[in-house]
Amino acid sequence: MSNTDTTTATRSRASRLPETLSWQGDNDGFLRLVDQTLLPATVEMRDCRTVQDVWEAIRMLRVRGAPAIGVAAAYGLCLGTREHRSLDREQFLRQIEKTGQYLRDCRPTAVNLAWAVQRVSSLAGETAGNSDKIWQAMLAEAHAMAREDADTCRKIGEAGADLIPDGGGVLTHCNAGALATVAYGTALSLMYVAHERGKRFRVYADETRPLLQGARLTSFELAAAGIDVTVLCDSAAASLMKAGRVQLVVTGADRIAANGDAANKIGTYSVALAARHHNVPFYVAAPLSTFDRAVPSGDAIPIEERSDTEIRAGFGHQTVPDGVHCWNPAFDVTPAELIAGIITERGIIRPVTADAIDTVFDASPSQH
Amino acid sequence: MSNTDTTTATRSRASRLPETLSWQGDNDGFLRLVDQTLLPATVEMRDCRTVQDVWEAIRMLRVRGAPAIGVAAAYGLCLGTREHRSLDREQFLRQIEKTGQYLRDCRPTAVNLAWAVQRVSSLAGETAGNSDKIWQAMLAEAHAMAREDADTCRKIGEAGADLIPDGGGVLTHCNAGALATVAYGTALSLMYVAHERGKRFRVYADETRPLLQGARLTSFELAAAGIDVTVLCDSAAASLMKAGRVQLVVTGADRIAANGDAANKIGTYSVALAARHHNVPFYVAAPLSTFDRAVPSGDAIPIEERSDTEIRAGFGHQTVPDGVHCWNPAFDVTPAELIAGIITERGIIRPVTADAIDTVFDASPSQH
Repeated sequence: MSNTDTTTATRSRASRLPETLSWQGDNDGFLRLVDQTLLPATVEMRDCRTVQDVWEAIRMLRVRGAPAIGVAAAYGLCLGTREHRSLDREQFLRQIEKTGQYLRDCRPTAVNLAWAVQRVSSLAGETAGNSDKIWQAMLAEAHAMAREDADTCRKIGEAGADLIPDGGGVLTHCNAGALATVAYGTALSLMYVAHERGKRFRVYADETRPLLQGARLTSFELAAAGIDVTVLCDSAAASLMKAGRVQLVVTGADRIAANGDAANKIGTYSVALAARHHNVPFYVAAPLSTFDRAVPSGDAIPIEERSDTEIRAGFGHQTVPDGVHCWNPAFDVTPAELIAGIITERGIIRPVTADAIDTVFDASPSQH
Repeated sequence: MSNTDTTTATRSRASRLPETLSWQGDNDGFLRLVDQTLLPATVEMRDCRTVQDVWEAIRMLRVRGAPAIGVAAAYGLCLGTREHRSLDREQFLRQIEKTGQYLRDCRPTAVNLAWAVQRVSSLAGETAGNSDKIWQAMLAEAHAMAREDADTCRKIGEAGADLIPDGGGVLTHCNAGALATVAYGTALSLMYVAHERGKRFRVYADETRPLLQGARLTSFELAAAGIDVTVLCDSAAASLMKAGRVQLVVTGADRIAANGDAANKIGTYSVALAARHHNVPFYVAAPLSTFDRAVPSGDAIPIEERSDTEIRAGFGHQTVPDGVHCWNPAFDVTPAELIAGIITERGIIRPVTADAIDTVFDASPSQH
């Protein structure tokens, strides 16, 4: 049953929604990705045949979302070292190191980027044989990472799909979907699995100022999958709940502290407060790799403040007078006490407490 | 002391902030207004010499905000009848009626527009003498309405200025400022008066999607007055409060029910919820004319849903895919229990209860 569903989903997805990224061909292949900066007006695939192409795509946010960036970087490392396979082993390993550093510098705050480069580089160092053997192993590792990401996201969807209210409304914020990962996404994976299982529900997507990932990306991928989706301004979410039109809120997370406090796109905290006031359960969907157990609580998570250009001129028009300050935090922190549960590939952590999180990690010591 | 302050404010305002609207000249004069559709990038005054000019300015939102629309319409009625002063009395009154209907149809949902047309028309009917005498009385009435609006707003500012935290932060949503009225505004009037009195504080202006009145207008007029103002995305307001940077929230209102429930720009309710969670007092500033005591509670206030073009293509770019629905309510209702007080030209109604509101109106039976 589950296998059949997956096949159907993949097929219908392929027919409507372009793949976030995929390797095309064999050893002489390339990385193909959908240019997310052009969505939703234009669907254009971009083929990256060099590491410089991958670097540019990550830098310009043509590919975004931590898991997707990680897998793109792994393929980028393969592309950047492919032509050096005639070098001797030591020279080749130095070339990997150099290319990896180049990729890491592309978006230094993207943790998954550095993690992916490190994972492929380590594998290379541990692989016996000549440079060609090493390179083959690197490409296989990048493929494995892509498969693992899709698999993890699918498991999150299956773990949480029962939460989706049949005949009800689900609100989400930003884009924690297929376009942020290799497939399925995190928060949106619940919706894809519930949709496969025949549930009928309406998704409300906050437009998510300033960069409008909800309006541009979440609505795009859900509509492509045939899921009923409505976009609203972030500030209208509380009214929607007051009107009784939301039975579940589910978002992704960028980093989760040891106590369950979750950092996510700016505005998530505001949605969580409104959900609490209206007795609507607020869930976070994220893989175990999103937990940073070295951080005891949300207070210790640094919040990136981004350029005020995103607010003052984000639509190509000047919307804020010259000389007026803007405050543009990229993330906020939702405290664990507002989170009904965290949906992971190993099931739902509920209630959200440090002890409950510890228990999940103790049961899977390979996770960090 | 109060008179001195007013003079200073008027002077400094004139030097930096263009007047929302004003009559230039005498009987042969015209209505000058700042074209708000071009703010903040361009400050351009628009001279309306015919009733058609005024109609177009209201229709295209070059002048907006209920009180400002009302006064503009009063002057529009004068402009549209000026050339008919040679008609006999009955013919002239019919011309007034016809011109008034033309103006009312411009934005049929704008209550103040119809109210202003009615007020000037009634005055005309009650005025003895020939058409020229009547017309002189009409222009005098329009001038009186403009003065009354500025006076009411000034009183609101004086009633609430003590709430502004010296050395603290004030958050507001949308534009309840000088640009929505003849002068001072309602919520922003508190800030102008506090600024005159030498208080130092920082204003945070929610950008206010979808039409960005906070980013475009509130920040513009506060900066012009020399008040420290920072723009943020609506979704960031809760984080700002969590960080302890807001000691007061004050907004305007579009309609207030008999029990104190207040309809205002979409997003106000969300801000009120966040304020309650963080123990920040949330105030509404509005003239008594904003109360609609025929409406028992907020549930009975109809909420206008506007075109989804404002969300999907509001800035010249497509931000939502074709075929995806948008939900675009223009207003929401903040229940009285979340409102610490309502600041009126007769003082602060606090706590906000139907009885307290009744008491204010019983003391001023001329108000509706």
